[in-house]
Amino acid sequence: MTDFEQWKGFEQGKWCDDIDTRDFIQKNYTPYDGDESFLAGPTDATNKLWGKLQELQKQERAKGGVLDMDTHIVTGINAHKPGYIDESMKDLEKIVGLQTDKPLKRAFMPFGGIKMAEEACSTYGYEPDPELHKIFTQYHKTHNQGVFDVYTPEMRAVRKNKIITGLPDTYGRGRIVGDYRRVALYGIDMLIAKKQEDFVECQSESMFEDEIRQREEITMQINALKEMKTMAESYGFDISKPAKDAREACQWLYFGYLAAIKTQNGAAMSVGRVSTFLDIYIQRDLDNGTLTEEEAQELIDHMVMKFRMVKFARIPSYNELFSGDPVWATLNVGGKGVDGRSMVTKNDFRFLHTLENMGPSPEPNLTVLYSSKLPEAFKRYAAAISVRTSSIQYENDDVMRVTWGDDYAICCCVSATQTGKEMQFFGARANLAKCLLYAINGGMDARTKVQVGPEYRPITSEYLDYDEVLDKYDKMMDWLARVYVRTLNVIHYMHDKYYYEAAEMALIDTDVRRTFATGIAGFSHVVDSLSAIKYAKVKTVRDENGIVVDFETEGDFPRYGNDDDRADEIAVWLLKTFMAKIKKCHTYRNSEPTTSILTITSNVVYGKATASLPDGRKAGEPLSPGANPSYGAEQNGLVASLNSVAKLPYEYALDGISNTQTINPDALGHEESEQVTNLVNVLNGYFDQGAHHLNVNVFGKEKLIDAMEHPEKEEYANFTIRVSGYAVKFIDLTREQQLDVISRTCHASM
Amino acid sequence: MTDFEQWKGFEQGKWCDDIDTRDFIQKNYTPYDGDESFLAGPTDATNKLWGKLQELQKQERAKGGVLDMDTHIVTGINAHKPGYIDESMKDLEKIVGLQTDKPLKRAFMPFGGIKMAEEACSTYGYEPDPELHKIFTQYHKTHNQGVFDVYTPEMRAVRKNKIITGLPDTYGRGRIVGDYRRVALYGIDMLIAKKQEDFVECQSESMFEDEIRQREEITMQINALKEMKTMAESYGFDISKPAKDAREACQWLYFGYLAAIKTQNGAAMSVGRVSTFLDIYIQRDLDNGTLTEEEAQELIDHMVMKFRMVKFARIPSYNELFSGDPVWATLNVGGKGVDGRSMVTKNDFRFLHTLENMGPSPEPNLTVLYSSKLPEAFKRYAAAISVRTSSIQYENDDVMRVTWGDDYAICCCVSATQTGKEMQFFGARANLAKCLLYAINGGMDARTKVQVGPEYRPITSEYLDYDEVLDKYDKMMDWLARVYVRTLNVIHYMHDKYYYEAAEMALIDTDVRRTFATGIAGFSHVVDSLSAIKYAKVKTVRDENGIVVDFETEGDFPRYGNDDDRADEIAVWLLKTFMAKIKKCHTYRNSEPTTSILTITSNVVYGKATASLPDGRKAGEPLSPGANPSYGAEQNGLVASLNSVAKLPYEYALDGISNTQTINPDALGHEESEQVTNLVNVLNGYFDQGAHHLNVNVFGKEKLIDAMEHPEKEEYANFTIRVSGYAVKFIDLTREQQLDVISRTCHASM
Repeated sequence: MTDFEQWKGFEQGKWCDDIDTRDFIQKNYTPYDGDESFLAGPTDATNKLWGKLQELQKQERAKGGVLDMDTHIVTGINAHKPGYIDESMKDLEKIVGLQTDKPLKRAFMPFGGIKMAEEACSTYGYEPDPELHKIFTQYHKTHNQGVFDVYTPEMRAVRKNKIITGLPDTYGRGRIVGDYRRVALYGIDMLIAKKQEDFVECQSESMFEDEIRQREEITMQINALKEMKTMAESYGFDISKPAKDAREACQWLYFGYLAAIKTQNGAAMSVGRVSTFLDIYIQRDLDNGTLTEEEAQELIDHMVMKFRMVKFARIPSYNELFSGDPVWATLNVGGKGVDGRSMVTKNDFRFLHTLENMGPSPEPNLTVLYSSKLPEAFKRYAAAISVRTSSIQYENDDVMRVTWGDDYAICCCVSATQTGKEMQFFGARANLAKCLLYAINGGMDARTKVQVGPEYRPITSEYLDYDEVLDKYDKMMDWLARVYVRTLNVIHYMHDKYYYEAAEMALIDTDVRRTFATGIAGFSHVVDSLSAIKYAKVKTVRDENGIVVDFETEGDFPRYGNDDDRADEIAVWLLKTFMAKIKKCHTYRNSEPTTSILTITSNVVYGKATASLPDGRKAGEPLSPGANPSYGAEQNGLVASLNSVAKLPYEYALDGISNTQTINPDALGHEESEQVTNLVNVLNGYFDQGAHHLNVNVFGKEKLIDAMEHPEKEEYANFTIRVSGYAVKFIDLTREQQLDVISRTCHASM
Repeated sequence: MTDFEQWKGFEQGKWCDDIDTRDFIQKNYTPYDGDESFLAGPTDATNKLWGKLQELQKQERAKGGVLDMDTHIVTGINAHKPGYIDESMKDLEKIVGLQTDKPLKRAFMPFGGIKMAEEACSTYGYEPDPELHKIFTQYHKTHNQGVFDVYTPEMRAVRKNKIITGLPDTYGRGRIVGDYRRVALYGIDMLIAKKQEDFVECQSESMFEDEIRQREEITMQINALKEMKTMAESYGFDISKPAKDAREACQWLYFGYLAAIKTQNGAAMSVGRVSTFLDIYIQRDLDNGTLTEEEAQELIDHMVMKFRMVKFARIPSYNELFSGDPVWATLNVGGKGVDGRSMVTKNDFRFLHTLENMGPSPEPNLTVLYSSKLPEAFKRYAAAISVRTSSIQYENDDVMRVTWGDDYAICCCVSATQTGKEMQFFGARANLAKCLLYAINGGMDARTKVQVGPEYRPITSEYLDYDEVLDKYDKMMDWLARVYVRTLNVIHYMHDKYYYEAAEMALIDTDVRRTFATGIAGFSHVVDSLSAIKYAKVKTVRDENGIVVDFETEGDFPRYGNDDDRADEIAVWLLKTFMAKIKKCHTYRNSEPTTSILTITSNVVYGKATASLPDGRKAGEPLSPGANPSYGAEQNGLVASLNSVAKLPYEYALDGISNTQTINPDALGHEESEQVTNLVNVLNGYFDQGAHHLNVNVFGKEKLIDAMEHPEKEEYANFTIRVSGYAVKFIDLTREQQLDVISRTCHASM
């Protein structure tokens, strides 16, 4: 059995010979069911560094959102010399490593698409080296070019007409979470040795294309591992062997993540489930007397500071979709083991505590893997953090554990993947509301007046008939599912070919499970529209060419979000039906199709491109985000709204069901303790029904309006809110997005 | 039906609407059965340009074989500004276009392998721009890197121990012949339009990986076509529309070929079957009175001059394999149609006549598609050119026409492919002689003392038993065939991925037939060795470790090359057995496996790496080339030797069976007319038996020895000889290769 002196004090197991981080965790973690009283405040070093960083963030905002950009160096694991938050204070940094040579300086990342990389520069007044243009057009093709070389006119049309939006065809697909813990636990040399074994294994008598591709990928992974060692050396660390203490464990792990964000600009570059793992190292050091609680917190604070600094160069159309400069450095706390033990450790408290030590922050995207059976003190502490900062989200560990076990992590917003065992072909989302309009108009887009879908027979009656609409909608969804999956097949083929995630995949098993993550937008509007057609009278309003451009709905109808089965059953039907259509399609690399009900902030862009709907939503208005009920639809309070969403079966949306709610503090109670108790009760009730996700905001509409009007006020500098699947500094949102957030339901009663 | 004014005078047909060059040829060519008396000598312009070129060639030789090299510009269709043989005489050039901006200047071609490109420069004292190194290592991967990222240790071992040699893993695979005639017949715009139609067609409901790859390839092809237009414009020509006369036809066609040799450095960059096609244009102009015979010959001379100028930057190890700087600009004349008509035109005479107007030359690799039923005058003229220049080869049109129809062309030496309908995955060759030794020694390499093959039980007896040897040989060939095909699968996957031949494939049907061309080396030695074991007594000589390193053969045995069925049957068995083993393997893109018996000049390198054999050939001595009988084995004269080779069934070696013979002029007769008559008789007899190929050299050994000792003599400057599959200037061969050629059988009697 392999043994390293760095492992002294750990209980051994199969993790010693095989790469098996989960086994290490299960054998070695110390559950904690106490409260937050042990936590330490920020150290001097933390205050100084965070102070400096806030200064830089202020400068960044003053410069229009970007502090500095690289225009000459093509990003890579070792493209830059070491960088520090402040050269003069570099000894204070317990965890080192920047994406480039300077803090908040954005790297030049052309592999996803040279046009995007160049536009990102020019948007912020930078001019990229023209030689780079030549290299990435004449010599090296980018992912983006590959995709557009292959797209069909139909794919271009669905994209342009925004019935499918947010396709990762101009930048990294993201959502692949390396098991960065492996760097700390095993050191790079053992990881290389294991990958070399895999390389040897991967060959049959025939050398089929699959094998060739896999062998090339393994070689790229091994090269990336070697480059990680070189990068760490440049910062003065030898990561060839396992980490010997907590500081090294945090540092090693971060180097693994740093390699990922130096090479990939995926929309979501998530950190994973690292808290319990790191607690093992911290606890060992605490037990050995080589670390104090204050020092432990400092490590976590400094590490989190690094996650708060992750930046990518983006273009305006990207920012419109995903507003507020998010990177989804999603990091999980909480959760239970399949053996029934709570996996909450002191470290889970420490991570949440960073929101107090350094104030609220959208990144890392802190996600509590929730179960009503988690220790009470932890649930209360998390709820308290929600009440104080509105910076965290909750996802149902009880439902996820069934499918993903107890070592999954959330990538992006709501997508669980087994850490180190799985990767995802991320696939944006299809606008099912628009699809309903296509069904009514025979594939004609009512906004652009372009024939986008197939020329099926349109509905010609004045009043809509439920059965006729359903029949046509079924056929149109069939078409949409097929073109959607086809398009994603192209994207992921090209991404593998031109922008392979070697650094992340190096920290994932070679024999990887691949999911193919589709997504749904416009969910609540379809449900309510179908309900309107079924339960009320919907009259079509046509333009001069007979295209239905609006509706007049007579009478009332049940709406999704009120715990009314008549509407909620349509919601369940819609999810199951769409998923069944996706499943029928051939998916790239025989990946397993999944779907999500998640729009992030793209609901605004989607809404702009969507004509009026039978549910009363007018043309151009934002769609409601994720699986949220429509704005104004919820009439029976928070609990009824949550009950509706909780009816959606997670098994049919394994990529996640996002729900974002805002609760007026007064609705929760008059003082924090009462608010915390009530919030915990809400969460328990919601998740015990099998609901998947909840973004919790605790503030009133007035605060939002004041922040929109007076962003300069100091109190709003770090004012963080949860939007669909992630958190964002409110003042970093576009005004349009701010207005959208303000118009959402703010529950004033339970 | 599409109609262009440029097509005026042509008989229309389905070629007008579909891309169908063959149909155009069949409907419009004028067979010619007259003699060479109509031919015109060189014009003043030809003499001046050729004089200049000979000067440059002399300078090139004086500079060690390379006149100039590019070190800053990465090759591409439009990487260089227009170049001319001599700027001051550029008006004399009837056909323009150079690979780079200067004559004989070699382009920098890194896409096959940056190391190779750099080594080629440094070998000749040039230093490539270090920035290019960075680009082609950090940003863009090369074919070579891709291959070596995937190779197994076994593949590296078979390569290093030279049981498989000449793999195209460091440069272009070559052997893909675009239908360059299409540029002339259709113009670029129609070709683009047809490819765009194919692009639209290539999509199913699913977008499988095959479809994605194909669509990307089509886009690359269309881009290459657009670049060809731009290139032609830079030379002052608009090739968007069809060529309107003979000069344009030659020029358009050459531009197509030029795009190929600007982008690819395959060992064989063949021109194809262009003679009859161009004759149609020339004949139309002659008939119209807009062209004289002298002008027609000048066009062909100038075009051929360009083919004589094609150069690639090579490395020493390449030159060892393929000696004399060949490019296999193979160009075919002769042949018959499937309708029985001779396809010989006046233009076939004109191409052969270039060897008189401008003297002998190894390039273009002129190949007569031979049939005894071709017009007598043409056969006599070709034979006369052989007697005078030893610069041409003959391949059996009667056997090839059965498989490939009447519009195939020879790529490289002996590989027929249907023009514009087919491409080849070229695959070098396996050393079956070495494989026999591996069978005897249980996979141990007797030269390198390394276990390369599988550890099968070796033969331990003192005397070899035929059945035991055959049984073990069968198993070892099984292994060799499998590792060989696996290795080629890797190479062609990577070539498609990193070095796709967009310019050539743009001129080939999208729905292309792909062959997978393996090859055999050491053929005659295996046959004779097995014959020795069967018919004589072969005693093993072992080293201190028991490895068989030599043999003592007692008694006589029949040898291949004497029309003795006992040996020749073994030859047939060997070919059929090897081919059957290849056919069992999975081949990349489900291509059709073929094989060739062809070594080119690699027989010397192969021989160096091969230990002594039971047939008496000693360790390190060259193998006999291609399907040639072993040196000294032929005891019954030329005809008996030819009869043996003719027994090999072409159907089992559809990639060609190469045979190279040297005949003493005196053996053919005392004066040229008699020599010609006898040579035609030899060719008729040989090919009527179904033999595939013959390289004909007519000279005595004394001349070779004198040329080797006195290369400075003016008469040897262009002294060309046929080696296995191509022609070469004798003085350009390495001394080792010259000695090999000298040691070959020179038939002094028929």
